[in-house]
Amino acid sequence: MIDIFLEENHVYVLDNLSLGSTDNIQKYLSNPRFHFIKHDLSDPITTIKVFRDISEDPESPKILEVWHLAANSDIPSGVEDPNVDLRDTFMTTHSILAAMKEVGANKLYFASSSAVYGDMDGVPISEDKGPLLPISNYGAMKLASEALISAAAEAFLEVALLFRFPNVVGVPATHGVILDLTNKLIKDPDVLSVLGNGTQKKSYLHVSDLVQGMLFLRDNNAKNIDIFNIGPKDDGIFVREIAEAVVARVSPSANIQYGKSDRGWVGDVPKFSYLTDKLAAAGWTPQLSSHEAVKKAVAEIEKQQR
Amino acid sequence: MIDIFLEENHVYVLDNLSLGSTDNIQKYLSNPRFHFIKHDLSDPITTIKVFRDISEDPESPKILEVWHLAANSDIPSGVEDPNVDLRDTFMTTHSILAAMKEVGANKLYFASSSAVYGDMDGVPISEDKGPLLPISNYGAMKLASEALISAAAEAFLEVALLFRFPNVVGVPATHGVILDLTNKLIKDPDVLSVLGNGTQKKSYLHVSDLVQGMLFLRDNNAKNIDIFNIGPKDDGIFVREIAEAVVARVSPSANIQYGKSDRGWVGDVPKFSYLTDKLAAAGWTPQLSSHEAVKKAVAEIEKQQR
Repeated sequence: MIDIFLEENHVYVLDNLSLGSTDNIQKYLSNPRFHFIKHDLSDPITTIKVFRDISEDPESPKILEVWHLAANSDIPSGVEDPNVDLRDTFMTTHSILAAMKEVGANKLYFASSSAVYGDMDGVPISEDKGPLLPISNYGAMKLASEALISAAAEAFLEVALLFRFPNVVGVPATHGVILDLTNKLIKDPDVLSVLGNGTQKKSYLHVSDLVQGMLFLRDNNAKNIDIFNIGPKDDGIFVREIAEAVVARVSPSANIQYGKSDRGWVGDVPKFSYLTDKLAAAGWTPQLSSHEAVKKAVAEIEKQQR
Repeated sequence: MIDIFLEENHVYVLDNLSLGSTDNIQKYLSNPRFHFIKHDLSDPITTIKVFRDISEDPESPKILEVWHLAANSDIPSGVEDPNVDLRDTFMTTHSILAAMKEVGANKLYFASSSAVYGDMDGVPISEDKGPLLPISNYGAMKLASEALISAAAEAFLEVALLFRFPNVVGVPATHGVILDLTNKLIKDPDVLSVLGNGTQKKSYLHVSDLVQGMLFLRDNNAKNIDIFNIGPKDDGIFVREIAEAVVARVSPSANIQYGKSDRGWVGDVPKFSYLTDKLAAAGWTPQLSSHEAVKKAVAEIEKQQR
């Protein structure tokens, strides 16, 4: 995504590096159009100051668009302590909106999540489905962020696009089922213990598709505010299949041991069916299915961790 | 509501008195079961402390249920400054949940709002309608609160009931269209200037009905978490009719002057049609229609302000 943005404009990356690393942006650091600022976006006062500094940079006088991808992405840690998602998933949104209003930036693209839907018990989920009863603090604070952006779209934003994705896989990976299973198997190549009974079935989107999808929607959007599910067209892949894919790649002779529950953890949605008809109607579909996305990510993550 | 609760239990009222007044609870202050604590619920640390103190009171060893009605109820002020609703409408919810978890209180009844639905452009609104795109920070922070409560219902709450009401009228009144119009007319009995063109049409619920409805749902609820629209069965009353009712009561000879927009202010929803079929199916309907609720409130508020 950064490569595409850099072709035409300056890019400012703001990150507190709590989950990310500058290793991931090393190749851009020598580009004079690229600017990295280590900053915690959850604080509104300093975030307004940073946005003001950027918008007063004579080389880049106006903030054309803001991509808000900052969040705690480790769902179980946010279930343990609601302050984590309050701060990293929600207050970041509040600060960014306050700062955008202050400097007159008015286009916002937001990484939301299928977690806003909660447990729909397998009922197909389109963007207008309700009620929205998230079962994790992560999902709750993504929904809270959407709500705040929606009010800001009424008050001052010109464009607000809310992208709801399911599980996203690929590298660099900092969390998630594929990384967890890979790490366990590297540590103990004989046995792989899986949280939950393996029957959870979910959609997986590869990060390469995700980036293409978001850019497509940005370039083909006409509304002040809109929401899109972004995901593969299939109805997902079983955790059991993911475990088998990791075993096949990392340690083919390992035994897989499953838990008893159909939930891996509190806040885990056992099954969902994700509708992406609106995305398709807008003219775009992902290249990779859930199976293909997982297969590609398993290979990428093994390489990352070895 | 307090009268009913006091019949069986101790009642602790926590309020920062930013909009409320102890005048409203004067008659309870001599009751040994009644306890008023001036406290700002938006701060989690001190709220946990207050809940701990209450739950350690030897006279009242367990917090049986929590009714969370705290919020900024002045929508336009929250549109001006998002910090108002962040603090008073949302952080109060965060603090209360943190405190409930701390002391093991597990039944929560929450005053949400039809504002979570945003502008549905007159489409009939049931509880499962989406997408939820609130157009005021008040609506956004009510939706954010619902989301947080939903996650808490998955993690530790035994009961969570979310009540979504439209405009609520009655006394004591601290804000709202009837109070505003009454005050204007008392100040200048000749001319009444109305925000917006008077064609906004909305449901109005009288506070007496609201209390009965919430108690009914509490006593007849079987689910861990549920959402109910609470409102009259009709499709509302025009702002023009409200203005006429206030004029008839307060200063019958006044001229009414309307604005040009179909919105009274940013965040005002011009028209909505509120479905309460789920409430009726549960076995309860309000006694007063929107017209009757407004008529009763106009008389009550005139008396309050004279």
